[in-house]
Amino acid sequence: MSIRTDAQEIIRQALQACLPDQAVRKALTGKEFGAGRVYLVAIGKAAWQMASCGAQMLGDRLEAGVVVTKHGHSQGNIPRCAIIEGGHPVPDEGSFQGTQAAMELVRDLKPEDTVVFLVSGGGSALFECPLIPAEELTALTGELLSCGADIVEMNTIRKRLSAVKGGRFAQLCAPARVYAIVLSDILGDPLDMIASGPAYPDQSTCEQALAIVEKYRLHLSPKGMELLAQETPKALDNVETVITGSVRELCAAAAAASRDLGYEPVLLTDQLCCQAKEAGSFLASIAKSHQEDGRSLAFLAGGETVVQLTGHGKGGRNQELALAAAEGIAGLEDTVVFSLGSDGTDGPTDAAGGMVDGTTKGRLEALGLTVHQVLTENDAYPALQQVDGLIMTGPTGTNVNDVAVVLIKRP
Amino acid sequence: MSIRTDAQEIIRQALQACLPDQAVRKALTGKEFGAGRVYLVAIGKAAWQMASCGAQMLGDRLEAGVVVTKHGHSQGNIPRCAIIEGGHPVPDEGSFQGTQAAMELVRDLKPEDTVVFLVSGGGSALFECPLIPAEELTALTGELLSCGADIVEMNTIRKRLSAVKGGRFAQLCAPARVYAIVLSDILGDPLDMIASGPAYPDQSTCEQALAIVEKYRLHLSPKGMELLAQETPKALDNVETVITGSVRELCAAAAAASRDLGYEPVLLTDQLCCQAKEAGSFLASIAKSHQEDGRSLAFLAGGETVVQLTGHGKGGRNQELALAAAEGIAGLEDTVVFSLGSDGTDGPTDAAGGMVDGTTKGRLEALGLTVHQVLTENDAYPALQQVDGLIMTGPTGTNVNDVAVVLIKRP
Repeated sequence: MSIRTDAQEIIRQALQACLPDQAVRKALTGKEFGAGRVYLVAIGKAAWQMASCGAQMLGDRLEAGVVVTKHGHSQGNIPRCAIIEGGHPVPDEGSFQGTQAAMELVRDLKPEDTVVFLVSGGGSALFECPLIPAEELTALTGELLSCGADIVEMNTIRKRLSAVKGGRFAQLCAPARVYAIVLSDILGDPLDMIASGPAYPDQSTCEQALAIVEKYRLHLSPKGMELLAQETPKALDNVETVITGSVRELCAAAAAASRDLGYEPVLLTDQLCCQAKEAGSFLASIAKSHQEDGRSLAFLAGGETVVQLTGHGKGGRNQELALAAAEGIAGLEDTVVFSLGSDGTDGPTDAAGGMVDGTTKGRLEALGLTVHQVLTENDAYPALQQVDGLIMTGPTGTNVNDVAVVLIKRP
Repeated sequence: MSIRTDAQEIIRQALQACLPDQAVRKALTGKEFGAGRVYLVAIGKAAWQMASCGAQMLGDRLEAGVVVTKHGHSQGNIPRCAIIEGGHPVPDEGSFQGTQAAMELVRDLKPEDTVVFLVSGGGSALFECPLIPAEELTALTGELLSCGADIVEMNTIRKRLSAVKGGRFAQLCAPARVYAIVLSDILGDPLDMIASGPAYPDQSTCEQALAIVEKYRLHLSPKGMELLAQETPKALDNVETVITGSVRELCAAAAAASRDLGYEPVLLTDQLCCQAKEAGSFLASIAKSHQEDGRSLAFLAGGETVVQLTGHGKGGRNQELALAAAEGIAGLEDTVVFSLGSDGTDGPTDAAGGMVDGTTKGRLEALGLTVHQVLTENDAYPALQQVDGLIMTGPTGTNVNDVAVVLIKRP
């Protein structure tokens, strides 16, 4: 098998492992729920896929469910489940109705009952029940954004103004148990941030919330001020959480696939966040230094890099990372660097990412292009397109960040 | 021992291993020279230290030697050696005289004789015997620089206009053998580039040289054109070369010291060349992802990063790398990132580099500083100075690039 065929197989297996339904399947396989009733609540952009798989696996055990996802994201009926579509990134009436339906569903449950809670990205907007009028919340959000409050400060305020964020949904489920299956789209899997943590204890305090109001001189109604003084749950003894789709699993699946193909995997990080092209340069340096190791190697780095815009071309962070690496690995034998977004769409393009090898730089130069110039123009897509450098997967239905891989193949 | 004490010990041992005299000692230990006479030629900025150690080790075996180093770099007499100081980075009369003396020394040697040839950075300027008038060479160099010729093109021309570059010094030594000990200051140890490769075969051809003249419409005298048509040696059967000081050894020594202190070393690369602060971010991402591995780890990256100047502060690439990492490792326990230049002077400062840990970011913030702002101002030195973040070694006398290390200490 050629090294590029290996790379395609690693990509296929890594994406497969992080599809929402696979993630739910893995988390529910062998899981026992005792004698009580089992309910399902699914929120976020991947809610439909997750719920569909969940309902199938639970079968007759499923009593009833509510699915709240983004407009246009439902793909049909799911047995025993109500499906409500809402607004994202700005919540709308659909979001509020869907959330209300979920709150109704979990009212008056018994200690032996279980709520299977499927969480994916986008849940902050799609799963919301404001405790103040929506207009006041919108105005306050605008104020927080314009005054320069950071994301932690914003969440400290907003969690207190919501009936479901900051662990409060899990409180509503009590005394029933909550089994939360989380598909993480934020680096480092901060459970209090993903979908604003409806089933995760909140560590912020009322004192902090009031200090933030003071600091930025925010305008709140008397009702709003009263809510800020009400504490969020600091511990939740009815919740069990598994993070089942995340960039960590994406990396682990890519590492496992590499191993199966005869490469020794080295996981560098699953929290990459530097500039895309500099990450590409760093990975190329790694590739260069391990040419003589005498064995097949796979270095893996997951995360989400950033692009510095200096031009007006077409591309994405994964394509830029790969293209930048082409400079460093030029001339190397049986060495590839590839990087892709798990959602299958890198930047505003129909490619998932880019793949380069030791010949890429020379082939670009034969076309009159230099890596430096293409990167300056942020125009990686058309350049890679001409040198077999685009990874095309189509939309995958999942979103657990990106993975970049250096492959070195030795006989 | 604290993790910072470990770091200081790793720094001490890594630098120690790459000092010019250590490098020579290692290369000469156990080396046999047969029955012939032994001569010594040392060139470059570290020539005095290398020759001093070489003369000491060779003792009575040493017949005579010539040392050509930079003005002010001689530290006294060396037995049986002539010491000549010359200009760097621009060659001067001293450079030419020193080179002439070396050429005289190796004239009329016998097949059983050996020239111990000690090479360090700066040799391109310090070791030169132009075959055209110095003024013509200066004018041509200016033309090459202004027309945009790359370093490979420049060397293809210049080697042909020199009596010693591009393997020609080794030819002058023949039929005697040459034992070259090279202290490398260029990433990847390109032996044809270090000091312009006086004892290394040249791969460029006369056709290439003439094509470069054509391409840039260079102005050469008839004598110059004639020289371009004379081939440089493509093979040298009288030369044995050891690269004994290089960033690879710096990394290897840091890895060995880490292992002795209980860390499992992971060599990432010895050819790092990306932006300093992005390398810091990448290394911090690695640190974050290996917190729960349950064992002490040392990730090593050698090379030479670059700094993007956006401000007018005081700092250097190693200080910027470390400072950038402080952002990512904030809050981590028993984790440090440090980076230093092996010459002991990072940028235009008296620090060798920087060291940060999980508390650095918070300590900076308590002083009213943010990592982002300090990096934007390229002002790492005063910031790190206030948080115990500078590595001070003093000038080390060697120059084999930089090494950056992530240490994670676990009981």
